Amino acid sequence: MNTNNTEHQRHSLAHLLGAAITQIYPDAKLTLGPAVEDGFYYDTKFSGGSVNEADLITIENKMREILPTWKTVTHKEVSKEEALDFFKGNEFKTELINEIADRGEPITLYTMGDFVDLCRGGHIEDLSVIDPDSFKLDRIAGAYWRGDEKNPMLTRIYGLAFNSKADLEHYQWQMEEAKKRDHRKLGKELKLFTISDLVGSGLPLFHPNGMIVRKELEEYLWSLHVKKGYSRVWTPHVAKEALYETSGHAGHYMDDMFSVFGGTSKEKFYLKPMNCPHHMQIFADNQFSYRDMPVRYFEPATVYRDEKTGQLSGLTRVRAITQDDGHLFCRPAQIGEEITTIVGIIKEFYTTMGMIDGYWVRLSLRGDDTSKYLGSDEVWATAEKALTDICIAQNLPYIPAKDEAAFYGPKLDFMFKDAIGREWQLATIQCDFNLPERFDLSYINEQGEKERPVVIHRAISGSIERFMGVMIEHFSGAFPVWLAPVQVAILPVGEKFADYGEKVRAALQDANIRITMSTTESLGKRIRTAKTEKIPYQIVIGEKEQSSDTLTVEGRNDLKLEGISIEDFIARIATEIKDRTL
Amino acid sequence: MNTNNTEHQRHSLAHLLGAAITQIYPDAKLTLGPAVEDGFYYDTKFSGGSVNEADLITIENKMREILPTWKTVTHKEVSKEEALDFFKGNEFKTELINEIADRGEPITLYTMGDFVDLCRGGHIEDLSVIDPDSFKLDRIAGAYWRGDEKNPMLTRIYGLAFNSKADLEHYQWQMEEAKKRDHRKLGKELKLFTISDLVGSGLPLFHPNGMIVRKELEEYLWSLHVKKGYSRVWTPHVAKEALYETSGHAGHYMDDMFSVFGGTSKEKFYLKPMNCPHHMQIFADNQFSYRDMPVRYFEPATVYRDEKTGQLSGLTRVRAITQDDGHLFCRPAQIGEEITTIVGIIKEFYTTMGMIDGYWVRLSLRGDDTSKYLGSDEVWATAEKALTDICIAQNLPYIPAKDEAAFYGPKLDFMFKDAIGREWQLATIQCDFNLPERFDLSYINEQGEKERPVVIHRAISGSIERFMGVMIEHFSGAFPVWLAPVQVAILPVGEKFADYGEKVRAALQDANIRITMSTTESLGKRIRTAKTEKIPYQIVIGEKEQSSDTLTVEGRNDLKLEGISIEDFIARIATEIKDRTL
Repeated sequence: MNTNNTEHQRHSLAHLLGAAITQIYPDAKLTLGPAVEDGFYYDTKFSGGSVNEADLITIENKMREILPTWKTVTHKEVSKEEALDFFKGNEFKTELINEIADRGEPITLYTMGDFVDLCRGGHIEDLSVIDPDSFKLDRIAGAYWRGDEKNPMLTRIYGLAFNSKADLEHYQWQMEEAKKRDHRKLGKELKLFTISDLVGSGLPLFHPNGMIVRKELEEYLWSLHVKKGYSRVWTPHVAKEALYETSGHAGHYMDDMFSVFGGTSKEKFYLKPMNCPHHMQIFADNQFSYRDMPVRYFEPATVYRDEKTGQLSGLTRVRAITQDDGHLFCRPAQIGEEITTIVGIIKEFYTTMGMIDGYWVRLSLRGDDTSKYLGSDEVWATAEKALTDICIAQNLPYIPAKDEAAFYGPKLDFMFKDAIGREWQLATIQCDFNLPERFDLSYINEQGEKERPVVIHRAISGSIERFMGVMIEHFSGAFPVWLAPVQVAILPVGEKFADYGEKVRAALQDANIRITMSTTESLGKRIRTAKTEKIPYQIVIGEKEQSSDTLTVEGRNDLKLEGISIEDFIARIATEIKDRTL
Repeated sequence: MNTNNTEHQRHSLAHLLGAAITQIYPDAKLTLGPAVEDGFYYDTKFSGGSVNEADLITIENKMREILPTWKTVTHKEVSKEEALDFFKGNEFKTELINEIADRGEPITLYTMGDFVDLCRGGHIEDLSVIDPDSFKLDRIAGAYWRGDEKNPMLTRIYGLAFNSKADLEHYQWQMEEAKKRDHRKLGKELKLFTISDLVGSGLPLFHPNGMIVRKELEEYLWSLHVKKGYSRVWTPHVAKEALYETSGHAGHYMDDMFSVFGGTSKEKFYLKPMNCPHHMQIFADNQFSYRDMPVRYFEPATVYRDEKTGQLSGLTRVRAITQDDGHLFCRPAQIGEEITTIVGIIKEFYTTMGMIDGYWVRLSLRGDDTSKYLGSDEVWATAEKALTDICIAQNLPYIPAKDEAAFYGPKLDFMFKDAIGREWQLATIQCDFNLPERFDLSYINEQGEKERPVVIHRAISGSIERFMGVMIEHFSGAFPVWLAPVQVAILPVGEKFADYGEKVRAALQDANIRITMSTTESLGKRIRTAKTEKIPYQIVIGEKEQSSDTLTVEGRNDLKLEGISIEDFIARIATEIKDRTL
């Protein structure tokens, strides 16, 4: 069953939900019931109060009762008057009918079994293929009519729906698992970050533990670039409007931007919503020759984008976004080699993160209407060929998407799966023929003439905050040793072994291993704490270890090392850290 | 001659300048002529145009001609009418006289030789001690009457004045030297940073070269903290007004702050002018026990403070200020040990920078009127004693400054001299009894009760941008090897030796040494470029080097190493880098 069919099936199930509601609550007024990702919903105005979670079972059973009575879908076009008459007393459907009529569009009624609904269509033809165990009513939410808080509040009943019972169960498992791994919950438990009411929503503050993870991540990202000819740059977080007028963001991006006003100077600025315009200014402050190209700038910089408070959540929906941002300035003929290097960095990074399995790439190309795009046919042809050649040469699992390119150039977007199979769009590589024009960038070619460079935007993790949110859930907070805030817990059985514990502590700390050592609570409690804190290794120190000058080490996946010397353990963990072993 | 006398002498010289102007330009209207740092000035309204630099010699000679005729200073109080009559026709002095009278203050006229001026006093008694060679008219500038651009433009003539001819000459040498080392000039020549018109004044962008220096500096600073129990944290660049209402900054600091408005959310924020309130929120998200204390946060974070465009300059007067900021939360009894550690870090850092000679420390203590200060007598006594004890125990060259403490606690400010003897206030250590109160911070003591911690604010370099400005001038752009953007220039005499050059290049790059290699221009030109770029080492590669598989290395201070092996040179430079040799 293809994607389209899945959506049609979900849409038909929304009608089925509508039918069940109507049978159980004859006075309820149905409004709109579309298919959505993972299922469907129907927004309803219940008379005399709403329904509650307990009622969902009743409604779901009614859906299963009705389903076998439905076979096919029929529809007919009706006049505005007929439609208004049919939905008399339902002010919501009345409003919709009037609007359809005003737009001069046909008004259609869809019939399944006894149930008739105002609908534009998009259903599966044979309703009998729907497995009654492949859907489930999930939850209830409030929703304003047409999303406007000035309108009446409706009851939204959400259903999950998949192609099979197995798919539904897999999704439910995934959601359960996701709840356990929720990075907002783990972020609090593991003291990784916090959101402060006084600072504001979407503006996470990183605790020391979270900052260790973040710093390791940022340093690893930089280490992947430094040997590839990238240079670090630094740019401030604000700029004058003039910069965004030149870049073109002022016209299109204003709603997402924060404006800034000087208290003394009264001057107006903007918080940067992206780094590219700043980087263009650094390039423009040079007059490079063809011998200097490509020029590669890297800056893990925080940009700010506004969102409504209600849409912000943990690290994945934030206002402060630290991009592992890079901009390359190259000659058109250099696009291929440069992007090959970037693809290599992306593959290495996601292999290290254990997310390389099942990834795929969307290759966004220009559409047929070339007038929508900026840049010459020649440079588009060069860039699209370069990207396609790379996809083939590197054997990337890619899907070409015609008409999906940005107006300024073609791009590659990388989708990666986390440990529970959820897909995340993370890395991106974008060609840009627009900004070099707008900033009038040039380099001097072999003939001593000015030539226009191509800009390549690229991000490996995308945003450090969002990637950390994904990564916390991917690892369920049990980070690989190199990322773990504390790598080893040293747990002397009692004060008697504190000296040997101290020897172990000093040796590990000298080797730059992040440790914790405590003796103040019962051993059992300390072991539990170390496990709750997801510390990769616990070293319990007692009589046996002290007398033999060795260690007993417990690790993840029931690992137990007995009688290992301090030096051997340090060598083992140091190798794991160096290799960034999963 | 003490500082006070120097200032009085400068003030008297301002009168002497006024007298000379009056003799040469009888129609000129004198306005105000105070003593300033390094000398004095007089603002004058010249009739029929201004004077130019060439006229300064004439005026200066006239000053020297008048000086021997002045012996003592006399003054008398006069009535408003007498004063107005005396300065009839001078609307500036008239305005001043009316204001003094309105304030009910005495109007005094000061007489030296034939010259009488409206003046509040503050002169040396015996004018004959002034060495006629200890002062010099320096430059002319425009200045609005009383600094208000709506008022008439006056001509400001600046004079330099010191206690002796030698001091004047030393100052002039220092200024000449400073001009050569000007970090704005070197920043451009060495491609360290740039100011972009589109981005805005006071918002430097760091080029790759500047970023190498900056990153080395930041990493060195962090390396000094990491083994002392500091943890990195990360906080966003904005916060809601509520944070600054709690911290108290909202009441006092508003003019310096940038306000921020969300495009979509319409919410109001501020760019952070300091990191402390954010760090308080991280601490407050824990409930620490006495066993966790002290808690030490470090964040090299960029804060934003507004200034008028005209006051901004290079890296030393900026709007984007990256503080190497740290906040300690400790028990009062821990203040001494913690500050001792910080003093150690400061000494180590400035020794590495070659700025330790001639430093001194201002110990700012509470004044007699204890009602001006926040915090109990007991905690003040503990903190002031701790700071004083440290000054004595560490043998710091300190000057106690009573009544100079902030209202929230005593502090130590460190003054360091650069290579040409200019003094800069850089590091600071401040005790704070206020913010823990305002944020209601606590830790649990041995009795299970909440206790209030003391906060210590500390910065080692102060601001990375300002310190880099100072450091560029201190080193005159010739950074020590560990900081140098490019450490070695490899210069094959010709294409014939490119292979051996490549071998050297690969060996140095493998050792993480920052190199440049070029063969495209004449050797002479390439050597000159390497010296202009202040690259510490140049390796010229020719027949002799290739055949003997050795290097000829030229370095600073006429260093020449002949016949050194690649390995030995790498070992030598690697040691210099590791030891951060000056």
